[in-house]
Amino acid sequence: MKYRQLIVLSVMLITGGTCLAQKEQPTITEDFKPSTKNQPGQEYPRVNPQGYARFRIIAPEAKSVVVSLGLGGTRGGTPLSKAEDGSWMGTTAGPLEEGFHYYHLTIDGGVFNDPGTLNFYGSTRWESGIEIPAHDQDFYALKNVPNGKVQQILFPSPSTNTSRRAFVYTPPSYEKDKKKRYPVLYLQHGWGEDETAWSNQGHANLIMDNLIADGKIKPFIIVMTYGMTNDVKMGGLRNFDIKPFQTVLIDELIPYIDANFRTLADQPHRAMAGLSMGGMETKTITLARPDIFSHYGLLSGGTYAPEDIKDKSKVNLI
Amino acid sequence: MKYRQLIVLSVMLITGGTCLAQKEQPTITEDFKPSTKNQPGQEYPRVNPQGYARFRIIAPEAKSVVVSLGLGGTRGGTPLSKAEDGSWMGTTAGPLEEGFHYYHLTIDGGVFNDPGTLNFYGSTRWESGIEIPAHDQDFYALKNVPNGKVQQILFPSPSTNTSRRAFVYTPPSYEKDKKKRYPVLYLQHGWGEDETAWSNQGHANLIMDNLIADGKIKPFIIVMTYGMTNDVKMGGLRNFDIKPFQTVLIDELIPYIDANFRTLADQPHRAMAGLSMGGMETKTITLARPDIFSHYGLLSGGTYAPEDIKDKSKVNLI
Repeated sequence: MKYRQLIVLSVMLITGGTCLAQKEQPTITEDFKPSTKNQPGQEYPRVNPQGYARFRIIAPEAKSVVVSLGLGGTRGGTPLSKAEDGSWMGTTAGPLEEGFHYYHLTIDGGVFNDPGTLNFYGSTRWESGIEIPAHDQDFYALKNVPNGKVQQILFPSPSTNTSRRAFVYTPPSYEKDKKKRYPVLYLQHGWGEDETAWSNQGHANLIMDNLIADGKIKPFIIVMTYGMTNDVKMGGLRNFDIKPFQTVLIDELIPYIDANFRTLADQPHRAMAGLSMGGMETKTITLARPDIFSHYGLLSGGTYAPEDIKDKSKVNLI
Repeated sequence: MKYRQLIVLSVMLITGGTCLAQKEQPTITEDFKPSTKNQPGQEYPRVNPQGYARFRIIAPEAKSVVVSLGLGGTRGGTPLSKAEDGSWMGTTAGPLEEGFHYYHLTIDGGVFNDPGTLNFYGSTRWESGIEIPAHDQDFYALKNVPNGKVQQILFPSPSTNTSRRAFVYTPPSYEKDKKKRYPVLYLQHGWGEDETAWSNQGHANLIMDNLIADGKIKPFIIVMTYGMTNDVKMGGLRNFDIKPFQTVLIDELIPYIDANFRTLADQPHRAMAGLSMGGMETKTITLARPDIFSHYGLLSGGTYAPEDIKDKSKVNLI
């Protein structure tokens, strides 16, 4: 049980990272390939095994095109230069950290997405995404193994007076044995992201499929929902009130999941984890409601001090 | 049975339309509101009840910003003018047809998406989308009724040597009575779109939820997959070979669905329909394999001549 959880947490830490680091690197090898996050058929942006990214944008009459990587743009970003054919091209000054990165373009003073890539919800907007191949990318690759499903559900939320969306991963075996019930992990996204992040950017479903196929993990259900209740304007985190979301999660989503999926609907089989803001939410909610969750995971979202946990007999410390 | 099918087909025709029509209209009423397809918190683009759309793009140093609506852009599109605050603004020359439209921006000679809106896969790329409120928008609104699920599945496809994606709508009752089995509609997207179109742009799930809640339709499952097998370059439709997709659909997807969902897995309970190219595919495949499908629907995708159907006893003509 502990081994399984450690693996899942490690996986999440590795794939959920969105940090950026640049090092001096003398020679750029010219073995660039299209990023796996590109739109169908798009050749740019391209990445090389060293972690450099190269961009090409068509905007022949533009005055300036800059690529900003990271949540707020990084030290001025990567300015592109106008090539002879009228396109704009440029390569990052250094290699990027492996894994997924959000970015956008600044063109003539306006912020736009790169038409070469897919969009991912981060920074409270749909942004361009690029994937720097990770040394363990095999871990989250789409492989020829039994694949589970990611389901979009709309669950009634009287407290927010609407229907709210969640995504639910069910393991490949879910449809085979119709009597089997599964533990559930409630998995929260980071600030500025939404309920699409863990399966889109995070490949949570593929990671699970691969771990299950390798026999490294026992199958469980993952539920991912939007972690804020003020849908439009996301205020400062300092004034963030967890209560409305806690109500949505505990009084509305969990009963819906337990009624509509074959869950093991008790505290010993219910976990919560989250990245960054989602980790903060996990800490607050799990400590407030130890009767609901037995397994907690904070991914870049703070730590539990031993004195935080009132009744250690109720939870599993790993 | 016939009534149900007519309703579904009408629904699909209404919501699947992407045509554009402009009429002379003397006065523009100033009751613009943000499009329902906008990103969270974005005020532009805006639409008014007459069907005009108004755009605002921030790109202070740009030389020109043009909004192109429709698949290939429409008569030069809507040029925006630079406002005093440095933003670019403009309103369509006439009202647009109600419903969903793809569009993009041309900024200084480059094609970009509007950062104000969500993206939708059409025109073989993720494009901006705008919704002109329809007179019957209540039909596809998210309402306080029991909601079904949209599931992403990855099914093995030996013929294309990969796992392929499909989305499966299951009605709200699917999880309640674990023994009930359902008819299935295989529903195909139009050219340049993909398997996301019917639930994203088309609201197929919400339409079904509302029709079921109103008692106008009996619940069934809808399966939506990508209708082409050349994933990257979509060639001319004239040279389109239906065989590889027919293999994916009939030999791979249908057996997977019947094995993994509680379907009524026989010809009398299996339907196929599609929009535009999807209609063309439906016509070809249903006529080639009358043993598989009993109900056919062509939505702007051609017509069936009576002589097309070899054995009329096998199918339901409506």
